[in-house]
Amino acid sequence: MPAIDPDRVLGDLRSLRRFGAYETGVHRPTFSSQDVEARHWFAARLAEAGLEARIDGIGSVFGFGRGEGPKVLTGSHLESQNYAGWLDGPLGCVYGLEAARVPGEGVEGAAFCDEEGHFGSFLGSRSFVGLLSEEDIDAASNRYDGTPLREALARAGFSGRPREQVQPGRYRAFVEAHIEQGDTLEQAGLKIGVVTAIVAIWQYRLVATGEQNHAGTTSMARRKDAGLALVRLLAEIDRRFPEIAGPRSVWTAGRIAFEPGAASIIPGRAEALFQFRDADPDTLERLQAELFALAEAASANGPCPVTVETMARSTPARMDEALQAAIEAAAQAHCPGKALRMPSGAGHDAQYLARAMPAAMLFVPSIGGISHHWTENTADEDIVLGAQVYCDAVARILQG
Amino acid sequence: MPAIDPDRVLGDLRSLRRFGAYETGVHRPTFSSQDVEARHWFAARLAEAGLEARIDGIGSVFGFGRGEGPKVLTGSHLESQNYAGWLDGPLGCVYGLEAARVPGEGVEGAAFCDEEGHFGSFLGSRSFVGLLSEEDIDAASNRYDGTPLREALARAGFSGRPREQVQPGRYRAFVEAHIEQGDTLEQAGLKIGVVTAIVAIWQYRLVATGEQNHAGTTSMARRKDAGLALVRLLAEIDRRFPEIAGPRSVWTAGRIAFEPGAASIIPGRAEALFQFRDADPDTLERLQAELFALAEAASANGPCPVTVETMARSTPARMDEALQAAIEAAAQAHCPGKALRMPSGAGHDAQYLARAMPAAMLFVPSIGGISHHWTENTADEDIVLGAQVYCDAVARILQG
Repeated sequence: MPAIDPDRVLGDLRSLRRFGAYETGVHRPTFSSQDVEARHWFAARLAEAGLEARIDGIGSVFGFGRGEGPKVLTGSHLESQNYAGWLDGPLGCVYGLEAARVPGEGVEGAAFCDEEGHFGSFLGSRSFVGLLSEEDIDAASNRYDGTPLREALARAGFSGRPREQVQPGRYRAFVEAHIEQGDTLEQAGLKIGVVTAIVAIWQYRLVATGEQNHAGTTSMARRKDAGLALVRLLAEIDRRFPEIAGPRSVWTAGRIAFEPGAASIIPGRAEALFQFRDADPDTLERLQAELFALAEAASANGPCPVTVETMARSTPARMDEALQAAIEAAAQAHCPGKALRMPSGAGHDAQYLARAMPAAMLFVPSIGGISHHWTENTADEDIVLGAQVYCDAVARILQG
Repeated sequence: MPAIDPDRVLGDLRSLRRFGAYETGVHRPTFSSQDVEARHWFAARLAEAGLEARIDGIGSVFGFGRGEGPKVLTGSHLESQNYAGWLDGPLGCVYGLEAARVPGEGVEGAAFCDEEGHFGSFLGSRSFVGLLSEEDIDAASNRYDGTPLREALARAGFSGRPREQVQPGRYRAFVEAHIEQGDTLEQAGLKIGVVTAIVAIWQYRLVATGEQNHAGTTSMARRKDAGLALVRLLAEIDRRFPEIAGPRSVWTAGRIAFEPGAASIIPGRAEALFQFRDADPDTLERLQAELFALAEAASANGPCPVTVETMARSTPARMDEALQAAIEAAAQAHCPGKALRMPSGAGHDAQYLARAMPAAMLFVPSIGGISHHWTENTADEDIVLGAQVYCDAVARILQG
């Protein structure tokens, strides 16, 4: 196994950081001018590595090989969350680029568009595996400023191009590298995460309906306070979920609103977004059953009915067992005893690629577990070690 | 005691409803063109009733008498909450106008500007009793669109006018009539509320500070969820306050926000507005002590500190005992056994007038207790009965 070039890997990552640099991170939303520049820069690097590089009709960057032998697809994404970290996405693209140089033959590169969801949800990887229709594209718009996706694609210069689709049987594997975004590796003093599965996200809208009224003249006995009803339900979830969750389950109410939202008006309606994540389907079902039961009890206790609307129920994406073994073997060669099998709590392009081919993911440690913030970082030596393990794993997979 | 003219009272109220009519209510925010028209209309009616009518430099309407004898100041406010009821405010102004006709001599009229707080808090009544500085006016702006108060006053044509101030010793009383805005009278089959005190409102900003992080990769053990910390505190308040509150205490969390407010991000900061109201100072102190204790316990339990910032602590405004007796006697004359002494859970201009002279309030029933909504209403016969009791009470006060 030939060695990677550490300076080249770090240099590529630092070059990408210049597109939309913000503090020590980047602000590079999908189809911002900086993002479009980064895509062209990455396509040029894939071409330099001997691949046939192109940006497709949804903005994903590909570098295709010309040979006939076994192929491994590499990559991740290039755009960032707003004012976020420099490695979330680019790390996996640059590892793939390095693999296209070492071991080279049989390695293809990709940067799937909009994994971060500025315009939709996993647009690039869904498009590649055939799960994104023209109607989906027509309907998509920027979640922050409302710009239609079609308009943004036109401005970026990608309109009218064909959308690349995976050729059945072409690939032996998709292997995505990514920062962990948690602190499991760091806390345990480990260097490589071998992802077993990407957790499913089940998300719900909780709505309590009460009676908007004057906060001074309406007695406690008479009021139907929708805000209070929602608070009581969330407190019950907080009390009950730890008793029935799995060891790695997580649950979050990230957004809440009372209507009309004035200090002196009893809320007539209250709404929260609630989600939980786990890699185990039984655990997901158990948590959902409990959520419905708690909402039903809240409605029965009154005075405000509480409804649970299911917004999303994804399926855990299992990573391929043989590919996990290959990554583990590569890790064992470069940092014996420093790899850990673990689920991914975050979503990644690999969850869609896994529908079309065997897929795997490799994690490197995140300093302090910080993510989606410009301070997000990984030690240089961990970046380099991760690249070496990654390229070695890809070589092993190509060798079969 | 001469009788009032029921059709004239109902006609005046219906005339005012035309300014900013919305469904069966009105949308007449302070200094909207409809509101300014209503002020001029009301000033003209006061002049017709023989008073020296003027609109002052803060937009309050006054009708001053020319005689030397004892005087009673009447009135309430003309602007409405957004898309709200037709009687909240105008009822007390029109009752005062009718009193300026019957019994007439000694009765003065007022419509204090912006009781509903579009630009501030009780601007008109505070100005009249000397509790509003020029700096307060400089600093005030519209809470919905940010228009500076100075600009709105200029557009309304009231800039540069003197602000009327109460002349010490001029008035025997201020008597304000208002709809109850609750359903205490309706539920008890009563017709007149004799207000004993206007409750104090103590209001706080509750802030939990956590650590914004990824909702998928951050384990439950490691997260510092500010939203959850706030939910737990609100649930504790809900559990504990009923045990220590007074019989008429009310408490409300009307507004809440998690930051950044995204489904997949653990809230790093959470904030709620919380208020309680009571007419008893000891009860207010007890509730506040409990609030601080609960927040301290929440901070001690961790992982997120919760702070309580005091935003407002008003004083309960006691209504004058002799004036209460006069209203009760008038009620006894027109609807025996149908009056009830009760506190006002809502704030009213009378709470500021009470600082400058003896003050009293009379309530009429609200259908279904509905308030701050365009369906807010009172039966015609209750409006008429209320006007008769009001004018009779004012006459009794003038007679001494």
